[in-house]
Amino acid sequence: MLSRIDHVGIAVRDLDRAIQTYERLLGLRVSGRERLEREGIEVALITIGESRIELITPLNPESKVEKFLQDRGEAVHHVAYATDDVAASLERAAAGGAQLLDAVARPGTHGTRIGFVHPKSLCGVLTEFVEPDGKPGT
Amino acid sequence: MLSRIDHVGIAVRDLDRAIQTYERLLGLRVSGRERLEREGIEVALITIGESRIELITPLNPESKVEKFLQDRGEAVHHVAYATDDVAASLERAAAGGAQLLDAVARPGTHGTRIGFVHPKSLCGVLTEFVEPDGKPGT
Repeated sequence: MLSRIDHVGIAVRDLDRAIQTYERLLGLRVSGRERLEREGIEVALITIGESRIELITPLNPESKVEKFLQDRGEAVHHVAYATDDVAASLERAAAGGAQLLDAVARPGTHGTRIGFVHPKSLCGVLTEFVEPDGKPGT
Repeated sequence: MLSRIDHVGIAVRDLDRAIQTYERLLGLRVSGRERLEREGIEVALITIGESRIELITPLNPESKVEKFLQDRGEAVHHVAYATDDVAASLERAAAGGAQLLDAVARPGTHGTRIGFVHPKSLCGVLTEFVEPDGKPGT
């Protein structure tokens, strides 16, 4: 079951500038940055309530986020929901007719398990399920 | 101060179809629908954790959401943050160089006070501040 918005991912051209902008204009604070070499992205994390804003920039021309930026410009890239069972969430979506980008759950960062649904299945919104590390619900 | 993601607004072509899709594929439940004649939109509300997903469709060709759909197609339309003082949040953004769409706070639905910041000021994301009705922080 989906319990909360885990994060909203925003594709940005210049991560340093985006961090400064979100901190200065919104009074938010970036708690960390991570380079995800396998995904070809660098991410800045902003915790807000039970959710996060993730500012995402491509590390190379082959990154899917680079293609997104070329097609759409800076914008919300995806919305992620916390779930206690990412496999079950993917199965429910598929049973409902969704096109899955991950047929089965795969490892995310920090021990999470994740899976993506194609944006065309959910009104243009690339959608991620995130199952936290450790006990569900904690 | 911003305390949580209040809601994520998603622009959709067909509200009935979007509701069915989000309920069937994600297992979420729409708690209500509202026609906002002044804004030229109809909205379906999905509560998830401390936030909401708002599915938004235009009611007429003059709606800004109609223009958004023509320009971008279905996609995330805006991200809204809860604040205890929407006027202060607008002032902070303006002081940081943001282009405001609302120079001062204005009434939203259900007794809220709201204000919008232009997407070009926040990495392509139309951003809303929402001050709940009643005592701040409750």
